[in-house]
Amino acid sequence: MSDTAGQVITCKAAVCWGAGEPLKVEDIQVAPPEAHEVRIKILYTGRCARICHTDEYTRSGADPEGAFPVILGHEGGGIVESVGEGVDSVKVGDHVIPLYTAECKKCKFCTSGKTNLCSSVRATQGQGLMPDKTSRFSINGKPILHFMGVSTFSQYTVVADVSVVAVNPKAPLEKVCLLGCGITTGWGAVAKQPGVKDSTVAVFGCGCVGLSCLNAAQLVKASRIIAVDTNPAKEEWARKFGATEFVNPKQLPQGTRIQDHLVEITDGGLDFTFDATGNVDVMRAALEACHKGWGVSTIIGVAAAGKEISTRPFQLVTGRVWRGTAFGGVKGRTELPGIVEDYLKGAVKVDEYITHEFKFEDINKGFDAMHAGDCVRAVVDMS
Amino acid sequence: MSDTAGQVITCKAAVCWGAGEPLKVEDIQVAPPEAHEVRIKILYTGRCARICHTDEYTRSGADPEGAFPVILGHEGGGIVESVGEGVDSVKVGDHVIPLYTAECKKCKFCTSGKTNLCSSVRATQGQGLMPDKTSRFSINGKPILHFMGVSTFSQYTVVADVSVVAVNPKAPLEKVCLLGCGITTGWGAVAKQPGVKDSTVAVFGCGCVGLSCLNAAQLVKASRIIAVDTNPAKEEWARKFGATEFVNPKQLPQGTRIQDHLVEITDGGLDFTFDATGNVDVMRAALEACHKGWGVSTIIGVAAAGKEISTRPFQLVTGRVWRGTAFGGVKGRTELPGIVEDYLKGAVKVDEYITHEFKFEDINKGFDAMHAGDCVRAVVDMS
Ligand SMILES: [Zn+2]
Ligand SMILES: [Zn+2]
Ligand SMILES: [Zn+2]
Ligand SMILES: [Zn+2]
Repeated sequence: MSDTAGQVITCKAAVCWGAGEPLKVEDIQVAPPEAHEVRIKILYTGRCARICHTDEYTRSGADPEGAFPVILGHEGGGIVESVGEGVDSVKVGDHVIPLYTAECKKCKFCTSGKTNLCSSVRATQGQGLMPDKTSRFSINGKPILHFMGVSTFSQYTVVADVSVVAVNPKAPLEKVCLLGCGITTGWGAVAKQPGVKDSTVAVFGCGCVGLSCLNAAQLVKASRIIAVDTNPAKEEWARKFGATEFVNPKQLPQGTRIQDHLVEITDGGLDFTFDATGNVDVMRAALEACHKGWGVSTIIGVAAAGKEISTRPFQLVTGRVWRGTAFGGVKGRTELPGIVEDYLKGAVKVDEYITHEFKFEDINKGFDAMHAGDCVRAVVDMS
Repeated sequence: MSDTAGQVITCKAAVCWGAGEPLKVEDIQVAPPEAHEVRIKILYTGRCARICHTDEYTRSGADPEGAFPVILGHEGGGIVESVGEGVDSVKVGDHVIPLYTAECKKCKFCTSGKTNLCSSVRATQGQGLMPDKTSRFSINGKPILHFMGVSTFSQYTVVADVSVVAVNPKAPLEKVCLLGCGITTGWGAVAKQPGVKDSTVAVFGCGCVGLSCLNAAQLVKASRIIAVDTNPAKEEWARKFGATEFVNPKQLPQGTRIQDHLVEITDGGLDFTFDATGNVDVMRAALEACHKGWGVSTIIGVAAAGKEISTRPFQLVTGRVWRGTAFGGVKGRTELPGIVEDYLKGAVKVDEYITHEFKFEDINKGFDAMHAGDCVRAVVDMS
């Protein structure tokens, strides 16, 4: 046990006090882990840019269910500082990645063999609380909410033991912290989809998630990998991550819809398409770019509140399939260690996404860089 | 060869001269089959009621692509009168069912192993013509269009050899003519869907297609089969075809949506849902009644022109799958003979759907009965 085990730890965390307010680095108190909880010293946290803008979505007030004050952050890497009673899946000193998609291995979802969604901590996680309906964070006795079960914008955080996984300590945490969200999301969406080998693929959006889709499509040996983005600067990125072609919808002849163009250049449409934009119009285009009879379109991006997808039912009746994934369909505790190994072998790219690095006191810069649009992924050093 | 082989045959057909006009029984001329064509003496034709209202959709003028004059009818049973050059899949005297979903066994769709859609005659079929872009029907030299490649509202019709299949002559054609559309459509949608055994199923709409879904769900041993219809009279029908429960959305407490009710009574939602209504709002309810993580919703009904389906992308991101089928995903030439055998064994119900029988001269009565809503399936005796 570390010498802080059982003690309240005072450390720094970036607190969001209310909708639309900037993050404020504060001294907070982090209570020791209760039974089946794990306290983690967070060394690095990622800033999910663009698509996977979950933190910013809540901070800005756009999320109607956002609650405050809260410690945001949903991807990070750290070291187990102490564990509560009954924890046997990780131990003090383990290098770990917190998981906003828990895996209890017991609930009807986990045991179904069909999904990575887990219901074990869902209700309390949605309320910003630990499973016992209280918070481990406070400032001078005033509770601060957790976020997505992980709250990685804190030097110390407490998570349920179903919400954390140990990974190979040889993997640099300042890199693999990014496997806690976007990269794994794109990777899993493609790599876990049967049939992509020797098939044609289009990926809409070349942010972190889209690039990760391209990386996976190349690795599973798709026959043709078309990247789609309205930003011409993304062509170089896309090709570096595996795209064999790049299409800019803004550069098509006037009045040509992207789906019609893709159907034309692929002799009937794509076998698989992936939306990594979060834009519902693009989601429709991705579906309609699929080949009649068998094309499968996967929604990965998270759309803004209240937005709906739509299409003519004829698109489905003629054999296209519309589906989606969360966290790439990856079961965090079961599968993430293997993805880290694949990273160590050079198969899964991670380092290549990092465009910005910040110190913790500059965490708001992460949001600024994100807004500026030149950021694929930023890593924040929590020390 | 029959003694009419090679001759123009004059016979009766129900011609629709224009949008919104009633069918008119006329003397028409039917040219002999060209190469790879088959001329069939139609003995019985079905009148697809409600959902599968393809004929009525065109007759009424609601179909923006409808063309006239035309001989409607898309399900029937008959006997091969003569065949053109190169036809080896059926012979004179065979009992046959015409197929509006062709199966050439050669095109990229047929050889994909993934779909029953076939592209071999699609373009010309859509124009109301035979593959050589001409019609075999005429009245005093004026061409009359074909419909869906089959035109069963005629005592003789000509179809492409990829659009017809021979079935066991022991099967009564006045019954199995109905396997040319609605029954097979519902049957295939469920029976060809992997995983229905031991799973929970809801079927929206208890017309012919929906009842056939129920029949299939029972036969593949779904664990729970919920029929949904706003017509209380359908409960008896539904239970007869295999439903274990019946829910009338109009009898729910004020403000309760059918999808929320179904999610509640099934502890999270259905494993599989099937829309057999053609109503886009019901299609949405069917999707949203699916279980998070793995529920699959299949659209079977054909929606009115211009109507769109929509939902929140969250529904798909959390693991529901939205798909559809045409003709139940059944490959007509490969699979329909087996379904006829299953009918002969008593597994697939057919006789049970027939509520009305008409003589050919009363064919308009079929539409009237359909409009009256008390009709599940009507069979027309073409003699
Ligand atoms: Zn993220
Ligand atoms: Zn679980
Ligand atoms: Zn029909
Ligand atoms: Zn074909």
